[in-house]
Amino acid sequence: MEPYALDERLASDSQSLAHLELCDVRLARDSRWPWVILVPRRPDVSEIFDLSEEEQSLLAQEQVHVAKALKAMTGADKINIAAIGNVVRQLHVHVVARFEGDENWPRPIWGHGTPVPHTDETFNQMANKLRGLLQ
Amino acid sequence: MEPYALDERLASDSQSLAHLELCDVRLARDSRWPWVILVPRRPDVSEIFDLSEEEQSLLAQEQVHVAKALKAMTGADKINIAAIGNVVRQLHVHVVARFEGDENWPRPIWGHGTPVPHTDETFNQMANKLRGLLQ
Repeated sequence: MEPYALDERLASDSQSLAHLELCDVRLARDSRWPWVILVPRRPDVSEIFDLSEEEQSLLAQEQVHVAKALKAMTGADKINIAAIGNVVRQLHVHVVARFEGDENWPRPIWGHGTPVPHTDETFNQMANKLRGLLQ
Repeated sequence: MEPYALDERLASDSQSLAHLELCDVRLARDSRWPWVILVPRRPDVSEIFDLSEEEQSLLAQEQVHVAKALKAMTGADKINIAAIGNVVRQLHVHVVARFEGDENWPRPIWGHGTPVPHTDETFNQMANKLRGLLQ
């Protein structure tokens, strides 16, 4: 079995904020929505049921931890949580803060348009706030 | 607090297959994708973190149970799991079997196009198979 390695596209589209017990918690490099991606640090995992039951339970807890932090930080109208992976098959879970009237509201964010980069300043501000809330 | 009641749109867009410990498991009335919707039978719940920790754990287990059944039934290339709820705010989790080249692949299914009804025969066949796999 290969050791765990992060998919190249996930690596380029997001930046690591924190390592929780199971997941690498990453902030997407896209300013259109506050958007976090959790990647379980396990090799050869594509579906949630490829994880052990203990890991599935950790993933569920870590998703909720991130969702609460994103809600607290943004006051979002709705948190969207999804494991899709049709393009990047390495298991990853999106946790996204949505607001009425935001880009593509109320439709989903995935596959919509082109990423709009953050400035370094706004990215770092958001990253620092989230890191604080995740501790 | 109001008692649990199913949202009208969820009721019209899907049909109940089974009650698990927490969720009403429903089959979407849309033949474009094998598509199941889990609705936790609890009132006033919009986000996963509105559930108790015990209920969150049950939801995670029931999602995986349904995902495995859908994978076994369809041999899908990828299972998509998502709690979005931007339109219908009652908490519900989509579990969808996706195939390379299916309608809107690899983009998400939500908000895409118009539902294509099943015939009664194909709907009932799928419902019966899934019910068997969920037992």
